[in-house]
Amino acid sequence: MSMESPASIPTPHTLIAGSDGSWAIRSIRPVVGASLPRAPRLQFLQGQGPIPPSAVWALSGVTSHVRYMTEHEQRAVSRVQAALGRPEATCAALIPIRKSPEWWALAQDQRREIMQERSRHFAVGMEYLPAIARRLIHCRDYGGEFDFLTWFEYAPEHEAAFEELVDRLRATPEWAYVDREVDVRMTR
Amino acid sequence: MSMESPASIPTPHTLIAGSDGSWAIRSIRPVVGASLPRAPRLQFLQGQGPIPPSAVWALSGVTSHVRYMTEHEQRAVSRVQAALGRPEATCAALIPIRKSPEWWALAQDQRREIMQERSRHFAVGMEYLPAIARRLIHCRDYGGEFDFLTWFEYAPEHEAAFEELVDRLRATPEWAYVDREVDVRMTR
Repeated sequence: MSMESPASIPTPHTLIAGSDGSWAIRSIRPVVGASLPRAPRLQFLQGQGPIPPSAVWALSGVTSHVRYMTEHEQRAVSRVQAALGRPEATCAALIPIRKSPEWWALAQDQRREIMQERSRHFAVGMEYLPAIARRLIHCRDYGGEFDFLTWFEYAPEHEAAFEELVDRLRATPEWAYVDREVDVRMTR
Repeated sequence: MSMESPASIPTPHTLIAGSDGSWAIRSIRPVVGASLPRAPRLQFLQGQGPIPPSAVWALSGVTSHVRYMTEHEQRAVSRVQAALGRPEATCAALIPIRKSPEWWALAQDQRREIMQERSRHFAVGMEYLPAIARRLIHCRDYGGEFDFLTWFEYAPEHEAAFEELVDRLRATPEWAYVDREVDVRMTR
């Protein structure tokens, strides 16, 4: 069974931290703003499902259509991206972020310009494909604590590459608009 | 009290058809695909609120940041747009639409190109400001029946202009991607 949802069809996802789930949480680190509470395990739930009463925290959102990528970029990514659930990808990271009101007040072309033309977000991410699989979950507009939840999976030998990727993104002009970010690392 | 929500901050809206509400429903017409059930009145609810058991149907979504408009377009619109709730604007229209899977599978630049460069969506809409006030409510990603709910308010003397506006938009290349559309007309 493929873990990929059909491209662009809204698909709910919930990430539940607590006593259950196939991922053992190794660290939860606040990068900007408040952290999330500690918990031993995390469950990655694709589709609808109840949040168990034992949950310490749960973050929900949907995968959906692309918001910024051009046809050219989308094709380039789809040629090289990896699926979730690869047996060798025993490391995962969950990076929930929120962007500032200033970011969201910008027009579409201004956000695109900061994100790609000035920060090369997609181009930087592309350099780490297919080693690092990625899924973007949207949660702005749902009244939650974050705007996006990004989920990454990679083999242990690509851990240094993953660190480099997040360091590079955090140094971009785009990240000046991030007003909350938490970094959760897991293994299974 | 202004009825405008702060620009770009996600604000829930629910449109409830049933026996209550300040708007008397004059007609409900299917434009493409299935219609919505008949009901005598409609309530425009900004913010969170329970859906009464007497509701015949209810459509929910959020106002949020702009998805396609450039800085230039956004400034031009904000200079001339009208607020909801003007005393003279006693006519309203609710036009829920859904776009096809083919639309949502397009990249951002392809959707923008069809919407504005080929269909002149914003430019056409601008010609009818400030006579026709408009609010766009997003509901794709929420699992509902429609992708957008657009709410319009205008004075009776601008009814012919409103008909012209919707006729022009329905004749654009963008509208070839609309696979469901209902047109609800009201007065108060």
